[in-house]
Amino acid sequence: MVNSLMQRVNFVTLCALCFLISLLVSTVEARVRHYRWEVNYEYKSPDCFKKLTMTINGKSPGPTILAQQGDTIVVEVKNSLPTENTAIHWHGIRQIGTPWSDGAEGVSQCPILPGDTFIYKFVVDKAGTFLYHAHYGMQREAGLFGSILVAVPDGESEPFIYDHEHNILLNDWYHKSTLDQAEGLSSIPFVFVGEPQSLLINGRGKFNCSSSSISITEEVCNTSNPQCSPYILSVTPRKTYRLRISSLTSLSALSFQIEGHNLTVVEADGHYVEPFVVENLYVYSGETYSVLLTASQDPSRNYWISTNVVARKPSTPLGLAILNYSPNSPKKMPPTIPPPGPVWNDTASALAQSLAIKARHGFIRTPPPKADRVIVLLNTQNKVDGYTRWSLNNVSLALPLTPYLVALKYKLPHAFDQTPTPENYDSADYDIYSVPKNVNATSSSGIYRLDFNSTVDVILQNANTLTPNNSESHPWHLHGHNFWVIGFGDGKFDIENDPKKYNLVNPIMKNTVPLYPYGWTAIRFQADNPGVWIFHCHIETHFYMGMAVVFEEGVDMVGDLPSSVMGCGQTKAFHGP
Amino acid sequence: MVNSLMQRVNFVTLCALCFLISLLVSTVEARVRHYRWEVNYEYKSPDCFKKLTMTINGKSPGPTILAQQGDTIVVEVKNSLPTENTAIHWHGIRQIGTPWSDGAEGVSQCPILPGDTFIYKFVVDKAGTFLYHAHYGMQREAGLFGSILVAVPDGESEPFIYDHEHNILLNDWYHKSTLDQAEGLSSIPFVFVGEPQSLLINGRGKFNCSSSSISITEEVCNTSNPQCSPYILSVTPRKTYRLRISSLTSLSALSFQIEGHNLTVVEADGHYVEPFVVENLYVYSGETYSVLLTASQDPSRNYWISTNVVARKPSTPLGLAILNYSPNSPKKMPPTIPPPGPVWNDTASALAQSLAIKARHGFIRTPPPKADRVIVLLNTQNKVDGYTRWSLNNVSLALPLTPYLVALKYKLPHAFDQTPTPENYDSADYDIYSVPKNVNATSSSGIYRLDFNSTVDVILQNANTLTPNNSESHPWHLHGHNFWVIGFGDGKFDIENDPKKYNLVNPIMKNTVPLYPYGWTAIRFQADNPGVWIFHCHIETHFYMGMAVVFEEGVDMVGDLPSSVMGCGQTKAFHGP
Repeated sequence: MVNSLMQRVNFVTLCALCFLISLLVSTVEARVRHYRWEVNYEYKSPDCFKKLTMTINGKSPGPTILAQQGDTIVVEVKNSLPTENTAIHWHGIRQIGTPWSDGAEGVSQCPILPGDTFIYKFVVDKAGTFLYHAHYGMQREAGLFGSILVAVPDGESEPFIYDHEHNILLNDWYHKSTLDQAEGLSSIPFVFVGEPQSLLINGRGKFNCSSSSISITEEVCNTSNPQCSPYILSVTPRKTYRLRISSLTSLSALSFQIEGHNLTVVEADGHYVEPFVVENLYVYSGETYSVLLTASQDPSRNYWISTNVVARKPSTPLGLAILNYSPNSPKKMPPTIPPPGPVWNDTASALAQSLAIKARHGFIRTPPPKADRVIVLLNTQNKVDGYTRWSLNNVSLALPLTPYLVALKYKLPHAFDQTPTPENYDSADYDIYSVPKNVNATSSSGIYRLDFNSTVDVILQNANTLTPNNSESHPWHLHGHNFWVIGFGDGKFDIENDPKKYNLVNPIMKNTVPLYPYGWTAIRFQADNPGVWIFHCHIETHFYMGMAVVFEEGVDMVGDLPSSVMGCGQTKAFHGP
Repeated sequence: MVNSLMQRVNFVTLCALCFLISLLVSTVEARVRHYRWEVNYEYKSPDCFKKLTMTINGKSPGPTILAQQGDTIVVEVKNSLPTENTAIHWHGIRQIGTPWSDGAEGVSQCPILPGDTFIYKFVVDKAGTFLYHAHYGMQREAGLFGSILVAVPDGESEPFIYDHEHNILLNDWYHKSTLDQAEGLSSIPFVFVGEPQSLLINGRGKFNCSSSSISITEEVCNTSNPQCSPYILSVTPRKTYRLRISSLTSLSALSFQIEGHNLTVVEADGHYVEPFVVENLYVYSGETYSVLLTASQDPSRNYWISTNVVARKPSTPLGLAILNYSPNSPKKMPPTIPPPGPVWNDTASALAQSLAIKARHGFIRTPPPKADRVIVLLNTQNKVDGYTRWSLNNVSLALPLTPYLVALKYKLPHAFDQTPTPENYDSADYDIYSVPKNVNATSSSGIYRLDFNSTVDVILQNANTLTPNNSESHPWHLHGHNFWVIGFGDGKFDIENDPKKYNLVNPIMKNTVPLYPYGWTAIRFQADNPGVWIFHCHIETHFYMGMAVVFEEGVDMVGDLPSSVMGCGQTKAFHGP
């Protein structure tokens, strides 16, 4: 009896049920949710191609953290990698009062050594859709990531209605090892990682094993491996679903679409969005969205779900999943061709989505009317000592050996570069449409120190890369804060006139925002969270090549740091009994 | 003029010349020799197959350290690996007064983090042939190793005569990454690394690119790559050469031979050997020898140098080099078939060589007549929680998070297992010729604490592995000491009668000694070097699977430890200005 019941209830539904039950039994008091994770390598075939993948408790993506606003999350991370360190960042969680739990290696902590266990403890103070991922080397790309889904408190409800919810995490996938890729990036001549082999939807893709130029054995690539069967999103006709859609791609900007169905955007990075309808959702690495989907189409068939690369000329096949209208078999193939998504270089449409995202009425937090400080960051690709790097105002970040948080809190001398970081670039003389006249940049561990509680504007200014007629998209992610997205523009930012066009009425707050080719993006935030926070391009290779700056604010107000964050740089010592 | 001279003097000769000149200009005072090394990955094709290789200053094997007895060696090791730690052990150097420079991660130091620089400083107090290599994970196998050649002091000479010398470092080589291999070893079911693809002589081998079961592109495997041209040993007819021959294989025991030439063994592990002549030299991983070779054969041709796998059924082709009689072209192929070496399972011949190695007359250091303590170590393959491990008396070593040296010196509590380690096994009831009745062992970080200045005998007792009718060879290496090799035997060690047959008259001192299949090996050493010292099987995979014990002696006499060895386990703290 139990068995037959089990057969009818699919696993995903069961999980959703468990989540709902767990919320029902919750008391008014916030709970502590305890996780024990072991990080290791395992052979996985997420796109049918067998590869050593970085896993949590044997899984990639790792376990989903399900919590309720106000809960305390405790994650004991045991590093079981043979020789590699690690660190895990809780993407979108502000870490108020716990800046040492931010998981940014070199910023908030020393790396977690093989064999060691690090305990992250933090409060999820806001309902919404968040992420976690490795923040060390390029380990995120190796598979170390997952989702954090935070429900509203008891007695509260969200300002939109749905029957069920599903989580959809997107990423891109390479067959080369991360080590191989990192080696190429830090070589002269520079060897780029290239375009990914597959796009994965909830960790599942399908590589065409016979498409490779060299022969691959079935042991290495097997399209009938159940690990690479497509993700099935099962729906009941006429019901409405909340889909939480996020991306942790290494490189690719994505569009996500469901054949024959529109999507209503209602949440972005944990903030309610004034609803708007899209045919396809653009998602940049580090962004999270919730959309509503109503199963309103012909229920006699299934539909394709697809994701495709945008913003770079794609050479990666579509990522595919199945929207399964029950009671159809999930194995019933849609009778159609999967939606190819928008053309890759339709920047106008992507920008239109960015502009459409406004804070939802009734949930608007108005930004301060003006900034105390404006930092303009010119995004360029450069050379530092012959190596290809990414720079802001011609400075490429090199993380120090001693984490900034420890160095600043305990005033350790010489722990990082004390040279002031540039507030701007020589805007009048710089042609953003050309390859830099002087390609050389410098590398530095210098930071931006912000006055506590001040209001800061950052203008991200895009430009041409080292390749003529090329400017790339960059999703910028800020740790420790949500920022208001107050403006986007084409071309060079005009500090006199553009600020007049800022949206200060109902701007969305986000933690990750795209910067479009040859354009600018303006954000505003309050430096109100004591700690040290990195702000970086969320493209794994760009961050690895120095595309980041670091902000400090109110570090004197940070409590005593746990010794667990130490052990590197100037923080090695024996610790008497 | 200079150019034409240069053309005639080959590079190896030039290096030897530099070495000689450097010795000539030395004063009576010992010198400090300073090295700056950067550890990184690079693509290398040592056997024509391109692979990410762990290098020092771009080289694998790394730079040869050339020094004179009494010199102080300072090596600044910068870890430029993207996410992996490292540590380097100075194999055969006793580290008297500098136990923190032994480079054994988990024993004498915390690992060196990416970006960090660790300074090793130690005295080479004895002339001879030594080695260095990574002592972390299985990084030695990835290519991180090299030679240390220590000359006699000014005014002293060696008790044998030669015209020139050459260094020959042997190793085996895998095409799979070390990570791949480590993953297999720590999986259930166990996946063995298998036999190596190539044997390298001075970092050069030649893989048959077309022998692979899957097609390999020329970019991946190219037999005309100069990196895999054979090593050329150039000699002048009638001259005598000292060949320093060592092995840092991961797995393989080797035989080394030169077609048509006998070799006279004169040094083993830095100790003078009463000369004896061999047709082939057996070399186990971690052993070093010097042999004399006289270029006494037909000078009109070149000869093959070969190395082959012994002690395991080989599936690896011969490693080949060329003995080049000048003025023949080094490219002139010998007109013969390379010597295949002895059959792999001729244990009797290998044992005969071990028995033939005695201390040279005039250089005998007589061992104490009896031991204060006898530790018998049964070598077995076991299961620990389902994982395949190697054990001593049913205990498999698990290194602690806090290095023993720090934990013991500063009496840190709970840093490692305090359970006493077993002195013996149930010899009467144990059948060494069968698979263990109970395959289960335990894993422990417990150690052997030795009375300072006491004399310790260790009897290594071999047995059957988990495979019926199989017992493997194990080269055992002791850090911080030279030991006397006092006996070898077949079968089960007889504690009543076998000690009566010990050679206490002229035993050789070594730091690495083989244990033969189903046999025993007895060593004696004095616990006279304050510190903590690991004693382990030098097969990389065996050590990785726990085949080691740890000795402590006189740790209270060890000076203050540098903070550079700390940063892991209980040694994380900020270190005020």
